[in-house]
Amino acid sequence: MSKLLQDVVGELSLLPGVGKRTALRLAMHILRMEPEAVAEMTRSIDRFRGQIKYCARCNNLSDEEVCPICADQERDRATVCVVEQVADVLSIENTHQYKGLYHVLGGVISPMQGIAPSDLKIDLLCDRIAQGGIKEVILAISTSVEGETTLFYLMSRLRHYSGLKITSIARGIGFGDELEYVDELTITHALLNRREIE
Amino acid sequence: MSKLLQDVVGELSLLPGVGKRTALRLAMHILRMEPEAVAEMTRSIDRFRGQIKYCARCNNLSDEEVCPICADQERDRATVCVVEQVADVLSIENTHQYKGLYHVLGGVISPMQGIAPSDLKIDLLCDRIAQGGIKEVILAISTSVEGETTLFYLMSRLRHYSGLKITSIARGIGFGDELEYVDELTITHALLNRREIE
Repeated sequence: MSKLLQDVVGELSLLPGVGKRTALRLAMHILRMEPEAVAEMTRSIDRFRGQIKYCARCNNLSDEEVCPICADQERDRATVCVVEQVADVLSIENTHQYKGLYHVLGGVISPMQGIAPSDLKIDLLCDRIAQGGIKEVILAISTSVEGETTLFYLMSRLRHYSGLKITSIARGIGFGDELEYVDELTITHALLNRREIE
Repeated sequence: MSKLLQDVVGELSLLPGVGKRTALRLAMHILRMEPEAVAEMTRSIDRFRGQIKYCARCNNLSDEEVCPICADQERDRATVCVVEQVADVLSIENTHQYKGLYHVLGGVISPMQGIAPSDLKIDLLCDRIAQGGIKEVILAISTSVEGETTLFYLMSRLRHYSGLKITSIARGIGFGDELEYVDELTITHALLNRREIE
């Protein structure tokens, strides 16, 4: 087997969800791409890894010290939505429904994986709240065991700020979900929190 | 959204089977990798795209003019196994059962996709046979409609070489396949070509 092919397959296999077979398929695709397109791709990966920063305020990925969302004076600066990861910011932004700011924790508390509260950007969140101006913190954390642990820990920290409204995103049956396949805890929650149809 | 992140997600989405969501997941993984590991990965991609050659004899991927298999004097140079693509060579090599040489066609004849016999390395195969020394050609082409077309075309070209043995890999039920899920054509073929148990 060609050393060059062996190398590229080995390197691509380092990516999550990419086994030897997929890596080989990717390599063969790369071979069919224009050399300039491949060079542009590898340059963008190198630039991304070398130059990307974390926003000093919200910990979102950013090209500058402060991310475009935090810098945007048009947004509602009194509301902060706390999420686990960068991908969650993008998911919420894609709805075009939320005009407040964000705070990216960078994960959830997980004793199993050795992630303690101090490994997350919780102090940074408290600093932001202590500076004043924030009226509501929306907790948009996943409902896993680790997520719930993180939620409880955040509550214990945030309830010290008087006048701060703390909310959590609604839990229930997702649109398009079939009841048959929804877990019992979600159904129980959805039943208990039923709403009168107006 | 960060321009650097946007760029890398856009570039990674060019890869087959990688959508925006997967590209984002890959980007976040790249961010967790050591900068040197990322640089090594992109360097190996660039090297692969820039320096890889096709073996002048068998059309397999190669670092040199002639691939290691064709250059290996220990291998049986009288037997050539004809395959569609580079990945097939690796699959057969992984069995450690085959000691002959290969010939990579670079695809199958497909009028639908505009792939004519002249787009494949069939003339190169005929040249190799014409040079003498090859006693058997094993056709290891897939059983798709395009594969069968390619097989018939190859037969029409190869039968002109007197004394050349032309064989095809055995068709049948794969090990571990459940009969229930095997298509009828394969079962019919497997029944017609049944073997007496010795």
